[in-house]
Amino acid sequence: MLFLARMDVTFPESLTDEQVTEFQAREKAYSGQLQRSGKMVGLWRIVGEYANHSLFEVDSNDELHQILSGFPMYAYMKIKVTALAKHPNSLG
Amino acid sequence: MLFLARMDVTFPESLTDEQVTEFQAREKAYSGQLQRSGKMVGLWRIVGEYANHSLFEVDSNDELHQILSGFPMYAYMKIKVTALAKHPNSLG
Amino acid sequence: MLFLARMDVTFPESLTDEQVTEFQAREKAYSGQLQRSGKMVGLWRIVGEYANHSLFEVDSNDELHQILSGFPMYAYMKIKVTALAKHPNSLG
Amino acid sequence: MLFLARMDVTFPESLTDEQVTEFQAREKAYSGQLQRSGKMVGLWRIVGEYANHSLFEVDSNDELHQILSGFPMYAYMKIKVTALAKHPNSLG
Amino acid sequence: MLFLARMDVTFPESLTDEQVTEFQAREKAYSGQLQRSGKMVGLWRIVGEYANHSLFEVDSNDELHQILSGFPMYAYMKIKVTALAKHPNSLG
Amino acid sequence: MLFLARMDVTFPESLTDEQVTEFQAREKAYSGQLQRSGKMVGLWRIVGEYANHSLFEVDSNDELHQILSGFPMYAYMKIKVTALAKHPNSLG
Amino acid sequence: MLFLARMDVTFPESLTDEQVTEFQAREKAYSGQLQRSGKMVGLWRIVGEYANHSLFEVDSNDELHQILSGFPMYAYMKIKVTALAKHPNSLG
Amino acid sequence: MLFLARMDVTFPESLTDEQVTEFQAREKAYSGQLQRSGKMVGLWRIVGEYANHSLFEVDSNDELHQILSGFPMYAYMKIKVTALAKHPNSLG
Amino acid sequence: MLFLARMDVTFPESLTDEQVTEFQAREKAYSGQLQRSGKMVGLWRIVGEYANHSLFEVDSNDELHQILSGFPMYAYMKIKVTALAKHPNSLG
Amino acid sequence: MLFLARMDVTFPESLTDEQVTEFQAREKAYSGQLQRSGKMVGLWRIVGEYANHSLFEVDSNDELHQILSGFPMYAYMKIKVTALAKHPNSLG
Repeated sequence: MLFLARMDVTFPESLTDEQVTEFQAREKAYSGQLQRSGKMVGLWRIVGEYANHSLFEVDSNDELHQILSGFPMYAYMKIKVTALAKHPNSLG
Repeated sequence: MLFLARMDVTFPESLTDEQVTEFQAREKAYSGQLQRSGKMVGLWRIVGEYANHSLFEVDSNDELHQILSGFPMYAYMKIKVTALAKHPNSLG
Repeated sequence: MLFLARMDVTFPESLTDEQVTEFQAREKAYSGQLQRSGKMVGLWRIVGEYANHSLFEVDSNDELHQILSGFPMYAYMKIKVTALAKHPNSLG
Repeated sequence: MLFLARMDVTFPESLTDEQVTEFQAREKAYSGQLQRSGKMVGLWRIVGEYANHSLFEVDSNDELHQILSGFPMYAYMKIKVTALAKHPNSLG
Repeated sequence: MLFLARMDVTFPESLTDEQVTEFQAREKAYSGQLQRSGKMVGLWRIVGEYANHSLFEVDSNDELHQILSGFPMYAYMKIKVTALAKHPNSLG
Repeated sequence: MLFLARMDVTFPESLTDEQVTEFQAREKAYSGQLQRSGKMVGLWRIVGEYANHSLFEVDSNDELHQILSGFPMYAYMKIKVTALAKHPNSLG
Repeated sequence: MLFLARMDVTFPESLTDEQVTEFQAREKAYSGQLQRSGKMVGLWRIVGEYANHSLFEVDSNDELHQILSGFPMYAYMKIKVTALAKHPNSLG
Repeated sequence: MLFLARMDVTFPESLTDEQVTEFQAREKAYSGQLQRSGKMVGLWRIVGEYANHSLFEVDSNDELHQILSGFPMYAYMKIKVTALAKHPNSLG
Repeated sequence: MLFLARMDVTFPESLTDEQVTEFQAREKAYSGQLQRSGKMVGLWRIVGEYANHSLFEVDSNDELHQILSGFPMYAYMKIKVTALAKHPNSLG
Repeated sequence: MLFLARMDVTFPESLTDEQVTEFQAREKAYSGQLQRSGKMVGLWRIVGEYANHSLFEVDSNDELHQILSGFPMYAYMKIKVTALAKHPNSLG
C-alpha cells in the first residue's frame, strides 16, 4: 500500500551545528534502513527547499505512522501524507 | 531529471459520456506509451480524487512541457509540477 | 485501517430535480450497503453544508478508492481523505 | 450532540523533555477519563502529524468548550471544531 | 446554544429576475418566522457582499442543520458555522 | 453602527503565569466597562479556541480602533473586523 | 469615515458585448455621481486586473452598503471592504 | 521600470476551436510586437500550465496596464503583477 | 505613478518598551517627511490591526523600494505592494 | 534550462548586525560569481520585501539545488522554484 509524503524540516535556532550534524547522521542511518527494508521506496529532495517527497510501501496506516514518527528529526518536521491507489493507466 | 506532477481533471458538463470514454481511452494509450518509453516512471491515483501523482524522467523542462501538454485531456487538467533532485540520503 | 473522508457535493445546474432525487436515492442505497458491510463505519452531515464527514474501515488504499469512486454522485463530489492511525491515548 | 475536532499540538522549545513527558501523562489520564465518561467517543492519530481527529458527544457548546479547554496541553493546541448533525443516509 | 453563521449567496445565471425576486420573498418570510420564533437572534448584511452574518439559538446541531437547510435559497448558499460558548468576560 | 470582530490571542512564551493572570483580570475589567457603556454589545468564546467573536456598536471607525487598540492584551491579539449593515430581512 | 474597497468584476459568458458596453456606461455614470457627491474619494485600476481599489467617505456602514449595492455591475462584482481609521502619523 | 507578470489563461467552453486558434494567432502577433518594441523583455511558459511568466519594461503603471489589457485574450486571463526593483547584488 | 501598500508590523519580543517608543518616534518623523515631500499621499490605520494602508506617488519602482526599505521599522514590517493605474471612470 | 525562483529571507532575532552584514557580503560575492558564470541570469528585488525573483540557467535539477542550497543565507531563505519552458510566442 503506497503513500506519498512531503516532509518539511525546520530546525529551531537553539540547536547547535553539532546537534544538527548529529541529527542528520541519525536521519541518514534511519532512512537508509527504511530503504533497505523496502518500506521507503522513493526519496527525493524538493529543489530549493529543506524538504523531501518520499514514497512508502507499508501494510497499514499504523505502520506508516510508526515509521514517520520514528524519524530522528520528527519533532522538527511538518509531514503531509497522501494515500495513493493503483492508477488504471499504470503499467507498473 | 525527475519531476513530480499532480494532475487534477475536471470535465466540463458539456462533454457526453461517449466523449469522456473516448478521452479516457486516448489518455490510457498516451500514458502507456510514455511509460514504455521510460518518460513517465510513476503513476498513481490519489485516493478519492479524480487526480494523480506522477513522476517524469526527462531531459529538460521543454521536454516535460511537451509531454504534459500532449495529454489528450490536457485542456481539462490542472497540473502542478515540482522539480526533484537527488536526496543525500537516497540509496537509489 | 481507518480513514476520515470529507465529501462536498456540488450539483451542476443542468441536473433536473428528478435526476437529483434519483441520485440521492441511489446514494442512500449505496451508503446503506457500505454501512451494513462494515466498510463505512461513520457518516455525519456537516451542519449547514451539503457535505459529510465519514469514516471508512478498509483493507487497503485501493479498496478505499474503489469504494469512494463507486458513489453514484462521485462525479459531483470533492473528496479529501485523511489516513488515521491508532492514538496512544485511545481506549478503543 | 456530536462534534468533530482536529487538534494540532506544538510544544514551545523551552519545554524540557521531562515537562513534555509529564504533559503527555496528564493528557493520557484526561482523555482516558473523557472516553470512560462517554464524552469523547472517538480519538485517532492523523498519520505523520502530531495531531488528532476526535469526536465529542456533549450536551452543549459550553460543555464542549469546557472539555476542550481542560486538556492539559490546551495552551499548546490549535483546535478546530466542526458541528455534526445526523446524516439522512446514516443507519446509526 | 449559540452559533454564528456566515452565508454567501450565489445565484446561477439561469435564474430569471422573477425567480430571484420570488426566492427573496420566500427568504424574507422564512427568516422572519425564524426571528419571531427566537431561533434566529441576529441577522446582518456584510457590507458590500451578498452575504450575511447571523446568530442562531438552537437546542441541537440537528435543529440548526434543519433550520439552515430549510432556507429557500439554501441550494445557492455557502454556509460556514461556528460554535459559540459563553465568554467568561461576558456580562450577558 | 455595528462591526463584528474576531480576536485571536497568542501569548508569548516569555510571559509568566502571573502576568497572564494580570492581563486577564485587566481584560475582564476593560470588556466589562465596554459592555456597560453599550459599546460592546456581544461577546462569545469560539469553542475550542483562545478567541472570541464580538459585536461593537460605535459611532465611527476611529472610535472602534480606539476601543480595540485599548484592550490590555491588544499586543497579543490578531483582530479581524467586518463592517455590518442592516439586513433587509432583519426584524430587529 | 473612510473605507477601502477592492472590487473584482467577472462578467458571465452569457452577456453580449452590447450588454457589457451598456453596463460600463451606467457604471461610469454612477461612479461619476459618487465622486461628485464626495462619497467616492478615490478610484484606481489595479494594474493587469479587471478590478479596482477605491476609497469611500461615508456616514455609516448602512450608507456604504447602499452605495456599493447600487453599482450597476454589483451582481458581477466581488467586493471586499476594509474599515480605515486615522493614522497617528498622518498629516492629513 | 521592470514588472514580473504571471498570466493564467482559461477559455470558456463556449469558444469554438476556430475561435481559440484565432485568439492564439492574434496573441502571437501582439506579443511579438511587444517584444520587438522592447516592452516585453521576457516570456516563458510555466511547465504543465496554460500560463506564462513574463517581464515588462515600461515607463509607468498606466503604460503597463494599457499593454496588459490590450492582450487579445485579456478577458480570459488572470494576471498578477509584481513590481521589481534593482537588486543590490545584481551585476546587470 | 501610484502604488497602494499594506504594511503589517510585528515587533519581536526582545524589543524593550523604550526601543518600541523610539522606533515609533523615528517612524513618525520619517513618514511625516515622506508626506511633506509628496511621496506618501495617503496613510490610514486598518481598524483593529497594527497595520496601515498607504498610497505612494513615485517616479519608479526603485524609488518606491528605496522609500519603503528606509522605514525605521522596515525589518519588522511585512509589506505588500499593488501597482495602480488611472481608472477610466475616475474624475481625479 | 530555465527556472524562476522566489527567495524570501527572514533572519532570526539572534543574529547580530555584524553577522547580518557578513552574511550579506558573502551573499553578494556568491551571487556575483553565479552571475558571472552565467548560471544566474536575472536577479531583482521585489519592491517592499526582503525577497527576490531570480532566473537560473542550469543543466539539471541537481545543479539547481546545489546552487540554491549553496547560498550563504540559505538557512534563512524560503525558496519556491518554478520550472520554465520555451513559450511559443517568445522571439528570444
